[in-house]
Amino acid sequence: MPTTIQTPRALEKGTLRVIPTGGLGEIGRNMTVYEIDGKLLVVDAGVLFPEEHQPGVDLILPDFSPITDRLDDVLGVVLTHGHEDHIGAVPYLLRLRKDIPLLGSTLTLALVEAKLKEHRIAPYTMAVKEGQIEKLGPFELEFIAVNHSIPDALAVAIRTSAGLVLHTGDFKMDQLPLDDRITDLRAFARLGEEGVDLFLPDSTNADVPGFTALERDIGPVLDDVIARAPRRVVVASFSSHVHRVQQVLDAAHVNGRRVAFLGRSMIRNMTIAADLGYLRVPEGVLIDAKKAKDLPDDRIVYMSTGSQGEPMAVLARMANLEHQIEIGEGDTVILASSLIPGNENSVYRVIDGLTKLGAHVVHKGNAKVHVSGHAAAGELLYCYNILRPKNVMPVHGEHRHLFASAALAERTGVPRKNIITGQDGIVVDLRDGVAEVVGQLDLGFVYVDGSTVGEITDADLKDRRVLAEEGFISVFVAIDPATGRVVVGPEIQSRGFAEDESVFDTVRPKIIAALTEAAENGTRDTHAFSQVVRRTVGRWVNTQHRRRPMIVPVVISA
Amino acid sequence: MPTTIQTPRALEKGTLRVIPTGGLGEIGRNMTVYEIDGKLLVVDAGVLFPEEHQPGVDLILPDFSPITDRLDDVLGVVLTHGHEDHIGAVPYLLRLRKDIPLLGSTLTLALVEAKLKEHRIAPYTMAVKEGQIEKLGPFELEFIAVNHSIPDALAVAIRTSAGLVLHTGDFKMDQLPLDDRITDLRAFARLGEEGVDLFLPDSTNADVPGFTALERDIGPVLDDVIARAPRRVVVASFSSHVHRVQQVLDAAHVNGRRVAFLGRSMIRNMTIAADLGYLRVPEGVLIDAKKAKDLPDDRIVYMSTGSQGEPMAVLARMANLEHQIEIGEGDTVILASSLIPGNENSVYRVIDGLTKLGAHVVHKGNAKVHVSGHAAAGELLYCYNILRPKNVMPVHGEHRHLFASAALAERTGVPRKNIITGQDGIVVDLRDGVAEVVGQLDLGFVYVDGSTVGEITDADLKDRRVLAEEGFISVFVAIDPATGRVVVGPEIQSRGFAEDESVFDTVRPKIIAALTEAAENGTRDTHAFSQVVRRTVGRWVNTQHRRRPMIVPVVISA
Repeated sequence: MPTTIQTPRALEKGTLRVIPTGGLGEIGRNMTVYEIDGKLLVVDAGVLFPEEHQPGVDLILPDFSPITDRLDDVLGVVLTHGHEDHIGAVPYLLRLRKDIPLLGSTLTLALVEAKLKEHRIAPYTMAVKEGQIEKLGPFELEFIAVNHSIPDALAVAIRTSAGLVLHTGDFKMDQLPLDDRITDLRAFARLGEEGVDLFLPDSTNADVPGFTALERDIGPVLDDVIARAPRRVVVASFSSHVHRVQQVLDAAHVNGRRVAFLGRSMIRNMTIAADLGYLRVPEGVLIDAKKAKDLPDDRIVYMSTGSQGEPMAVLARMANLEHQIEIGEGDTVILASSLIPGNENSVYRVIDGLTKLGAHVVHKGNAKVHVSGHAAAGELLYCYNILRPKNVMPVHGEHRHLFASAALAERTGVPRKNIITGQDGIVVDLRDGVAEVVGQLDLGFVYVDGSTVGEITDADLKDRRVLAEEGFISVFVAIDPATGRVVVGPEIQSRGFAEDESVFDTVRPKIIAALTEAAENGTRDTHAFSQVVRRTVGRWVNTQHRRRPMIVPVVISA
Repeated sequence: MPTTIQTPRALEKGTLRVIPTGGLGEIGRNMTVYEIDGKLLVVDAGVLFPEEHQPGVDLILPDFSPITDRLDDVLGVVLTHGHEDHIGAVPYLLRLRKDIPLLGSTLTLALVEAKLKEHRIAPYTMAVKEGQIEKLGPFELEFIAVNHSIPDALAVAIRTSAGLVLHTGDFKMDQLPLDDRITDLRAFARLGEEGVDLFLPDSTNADVPGFTALERDIGPVLDDVIARAPRRVVVASFSSHVHRVQQVLDAAHVNGRRVAFLGRSMIRNMTIAADLGYLRVPEGVLIDAKKAKDLPDDRIVYMSTGSQGEPMAVLARMANLEHQIEIGEGDTVILASSLIPGNENSVYRVIDGLTKLGAHVVHKGNAKVHVSGHAAAGELLYCYNILRPKNVMPVHGEHRHLFASAALAERTGVPRKNIITGQDGIVVDLRDGVAEVVGQLDLGFVYVDGSTVGEITDADLKDRRVLAEEGFISVFVAIDPATGRVVVGPEIQSRGFAEDESVFDTVRPKIIAALTEAAENGTRDTHAFSQVVRRTVGRWVNTQHRRRPMIVPVVISA
């Protein structure tokens, strides 16, 4: 069980408990746990990507502790769509219990299965689609089509004896989507008539005024840029954005160009999407990247990963001339993607590198080559109005997004006391149309680093930040504890501090003197001698260099 | 002398040599060296702020090496305006020769003198103003008023026997500025008639279409936000943005509020600006921050630093509840500043923290509370057209900005061969109206860290990045080199790797075995034994943890 900040009361029969374990106060690691009558249902299990204050971390998982002791009570995991921030933690959850059933649309399950295969897990899955109703113990689930930046996304309505909950997953309300699959407002209306007791909407763009532009407006821009491009074209986008890739395929085809996919995830995801019929590949348009090199420059479009400036992805390697495709004068590069906050430096570094090589770089900042996948404020108002929910808990967002969505709810008439803006681990009980905050669990960040999960702690990250800022100085000495006389050392090593080791010449005698003096004053314990070394070196480095590297003293008795 | 990539030819008498030592390929550390007939002139000496791949660095200086051997030939440093990226490196330059004359406007010199005072340097200065002409040896300097986000900015026209150069410094072309001091297009027209042989324009916003909005449009928005604010108002802005602060003072005054300055640099700069008459303080509007607490909440505006989310500045501390002013429900916070690329994470973290505390946060993303200080593409076209320069070298920008400005020059009719887009250290010679690239110096980044300048190298930064990503494991052993027998140790220390030291229990016997085996195979040298330790630990950590921490082995003979 997790530690609690405010311990929730025992859950009574017939009351629904809702615990978001991720996604409140962050864009990522979305996961919500529902409980009633002793049974649990999980909606989504995503990852969060680390920021610069979490160096070296590969992924961040939701804290599973609210369910780790009760895995046998979990009836299923509903996956609303196939993005990493909603499915990325599934392998780590299934490591705890392999046969938890996964429910989701065909594409969502195909993507999660491909991911699980890499982890050598064959999951127990159940494909569902819009309109379908499934009963899982005390939970009746109704799936509703929603439109997002990946096909086949679903919202889920959860009916229990405690009331009706609507959990949107990520969505927007494009009224003319490429696949004609709009967010099902008729279903929202019907649920509204039935009475939605608790609404959990995607808040990512709640602070963006107005309406997200149509996906269909992107196609002609891509078409135009590709038509005018004198030489090669490289388009970078998210590797799961099937519709954007569809637009690129179509634009290339119209312009007599062939398309080669670059990047492992792009190739994998588009193969899945084409196999399942979500991506319609015009006859003869695809070509293997190796063969594409033999085509004339104005007959090829490369569709690649790396739109966020990820250093190991195709686009960044191109910008550094570390990719087999050498970008040069006359080439056109299109970043058909949003710029996720936090990635600006990396993305601009890539744009700058490509520009310096002579490429014409087209991106969201200078052309309409991408629209967001999330409902903006105007769209959310439609939802609040058609649903008229009794209670609202905005999810999927940093605090400013959650507060922005809450403000929209209030403006449509939801009473302020019925709007919950919380953080991960908040415990909300629903009964008789009343939603109440009854507790707060103390949930942490679970870091994945290499093959380890949860081994790296916040203390390690703090150490890493200090090491990054200042480097370290390690000092080894073996001493005679009776006299403080140095028998071996001081051996001083440093990294990230100064290249020239002669800087330490002045501190060695200070260490030797300080140890002797400490022994004269009665110090005998090696830990105490270590502290003497730390203080001596710390004082020296602060006075001489005005810096504060990590000091790692090792004193042993010889 | 710096190393060269392409060695320039010897400089002939009557030819002007131009070497930008900073500001080409980066926004910051602007500095350009001009040379003719054995004499040198420097325009600006600014700093660059480090990015996340330069951890722990305080400042980055231009590489002074092109002038370090010739300091006595430097006739002066022209400072175009008082921003850090144009004056911040002056203390470090004057450490090399204290009496290099500094030329600049009254405000610019006042700001640089305040900075130099902290470094205990009393400079030799010469105040100049728009319209003034000064002769420094072979250089005739004419100063021209330009409008920027700090008052009293100057462009400089440099006349030599080799031709006329116009160096703009940072500027924009607000046609209705608060101080009515517009960029002097009449002077540009006159210089254009005379014939500009080389034009070096600020390129920062060259890729922004259209025109920068008027500063005067900001005032009513600030006024409106402050008028509606129910409780306290905090405005964060750049501490040198005198006009923005003026607008806040005026808006506060109109709304019957008093203003308290928060943050050392805000107090210092505004005291200077008020003393010199650049800031007009309405009677009785200022109040000391300590006394402001006694005012009713709706009678106070705090004017603070920290608009870029700097962790130690006032605003970030408020967001973390680490400041004596505790932000709460009903407070309004205005970020009246641009969001400098790279700072997004820090700024959004601050906005999120303030929102969570209950504040209403107004920023450039949701209200028109700031405009840029740099000329956008539309404004640059005016300049190119009125000047009709023979040659152009865009400065002050990353490569995409320099290329964007070059494209604008070309569209106004400057022949492509007369447009130079280079990088720091490019050597350009001007003679008889012809500008030619004659060399490329290999100039590096000079890092300031604590009290050290240039001691931290790129190798140290690489070490710091590895330490940040992965932490380190240090292994100390004293061995008998004849047998490889471990006499002391292995003593293993790690930071940023794993909190639980028992993880190393399995590797200690491997180290001992590997050392014995190496000795049996004839190894005797401690360096070779160190390599054995490194390989053994490296292999273990890769297999067991799939990670690559820095491994620091220390092997000594006992």
